[in-house]
Amino acid sequence: MEFEHVRIVLVGTTHPGNIGATARAMHTMGLQQLCLVDPQCDPRDDAAVARAARAEAILEQATQHATLAAALSGCQRVYGLSARPRAERYLVNDLRTAALGSAALRAQAEATGRAEWAEQAWIFGRERTGLSNAELDHCHELVHIPTNPYYSSLNVASAVQLVAWELRMAHHAPHALTGGTGPYPSHSTPATVDTLERFFDHLEQTATTVGYLERQNPELTMRRLRNIFRRAALGEDEVRMLRGLLSHILDSRRWKKR
Amino acid sequence: MEFEHVRIVLVGTTHPGNIGATARAMHTMGLQQLCLVDPQCDPRDDAAVARAARAEAILEQATQHATLAAALSGCQRVYGLSARPRAERYLVNDLRTAALGSAALRAQAEATGRAEWAEQAWIFGRERTGLSNAELDHCHELVHIPTNPYYSSLNVASAVQLVAWELRMAHHAPHALTGGTGPYPSHSTPATVDTLERFFDHLEQTATTVGYLERQNPELTMRRLRNIFRRAALGEDEVRMLRGLLSHILDSRRWKKR
Repeated sequence: MEFEHVRIVLVGTTHPGNIGATARAMHTMGLQQLCLVDPQCDPRDDAAVARAARAEAILEQATQHATLAAALSGCQRVYGLSARPRAERYLVNDLRTAALGSAALRAQAEATGRAEWAEQAWIFGRERTGLSNAELDHCHELVHIPTNPYYSSLNVASAVQLVAWELRMAHHAPHALTGGTGPYPSHSTPATVDTLERFFDHLEQTATTVGYLERQNPELTMRRLRNIFRRAALGEDEVRMLRGLLSHILDSRRWKKR
Repeated sequence: MEFEHVRIVLVGTTHPGNIGATARAMHTMGLQQLCLVDPQCDPRDDAAVARAARAEAILEQATQHATLAAALSGCQRVYGLSARPRAERYLVNDLRTAALGSAALRAQAEATGRAEWAEQAWIFGRERTGLSNAELDHCHELVHIPTNPYYSSLNVASAVQLVAWELRMAHHAPHALTGGTGPYPSHSTPATVDTLERFFDHLEQTATTVGYLERQNPELTMRRLRNIFRRAALGEDEVRMLRGLLSHILDSRRWKKR
């Protein structure tokens, strides 16, 4: 289980829909452990199950605790989400920095064979009032999500979604940025420069035959056309398709001449 | 207005709560423009307003459009969110890479005093079925959010939350992105989607006239041709040049007929 060392702790949540949406948000990023401290609603309510989509297993396995201290038992690092600037001397980090720190902690724990060193909790407060000062006192580190300064009212499940995302990205780095195709589209062998040169010759021949190039600066025009098709990062099969089109243009002209 | 160049486009949304939650998610990160294409519910429904919390202004100012094309008018870069791997030749990037590209585009637009170059849309599909292939054909780039491979079912408003967050983080960290030109070459106004559609019509007309399309699967072939030219990130002047070439091809055929 990839994120077995991470607990998401919701304190005093009042809307069951937010608990369900939190389960779904966690599951999309591979987090599993949900802890509910003194929930003010039934976490197995229909609204929770509906918003959980197919992540009910997380709801069913969620633990309930009367106090925050009970939910944190065994943790070695506690992160508290906080929108408000605090006068006290907490360590405060933005979310991305905190998530990278969490991944570093995990890497360190693995390197030393002490998985329990990375055992951690991320605490989210009540919908209206957040975490109390007494609750923040459990935290090693406060986490600030930089938002629109004029509207920082993140829904609690949305905050969990962002934390889960940043944890996933941080734990998967440097692999985090795969999944894209890079400059070339998938399922396509990138065209070799030789293939491209033959295509450019074919294109130039076509542009000349239809009388286009002679009305332009031919050298500059061909350079611009080459730039366009180089930027497109063509595949071999795409060059074949484009050359098929060029052949038809030339053939249809020959046919008219006859 | 910080993100005046970014439109969030929801296509065929069925749950008003998701539209409200989207407005809230956007507002927390400073995004303002919400476009609704063919919504399957009332975006001012009570459920939408409740989930919007204090972000109703975004709901009230949201525009409604019968077609995706109408919602994209004037855009120069279109990003489509897609969970499924696609066989077609789209450019695909993970969310963070795409957001960094968006910030680079914005930086380029500002450096050249052409704010409109960065005008962009991020498209989100239906709750159950996502975006259709025809809708994906409007996109310059598909965006993949790396998730738990066993459960990729992100709620649409949660996906908007992640996109808005990554855009905010990318736009606020411009230091990472200096030096390059971004997706568009310098000294060229990026072609609007409207310009591109007219070019694609012209290209299709040409490919039909020379007898090429009828020997292929026309729909698939045109999709592949569109993909090539979208990836090339054409400038307005380049589209003019290509259309000049197409006009010569068509004119030279008419001349032969006489």
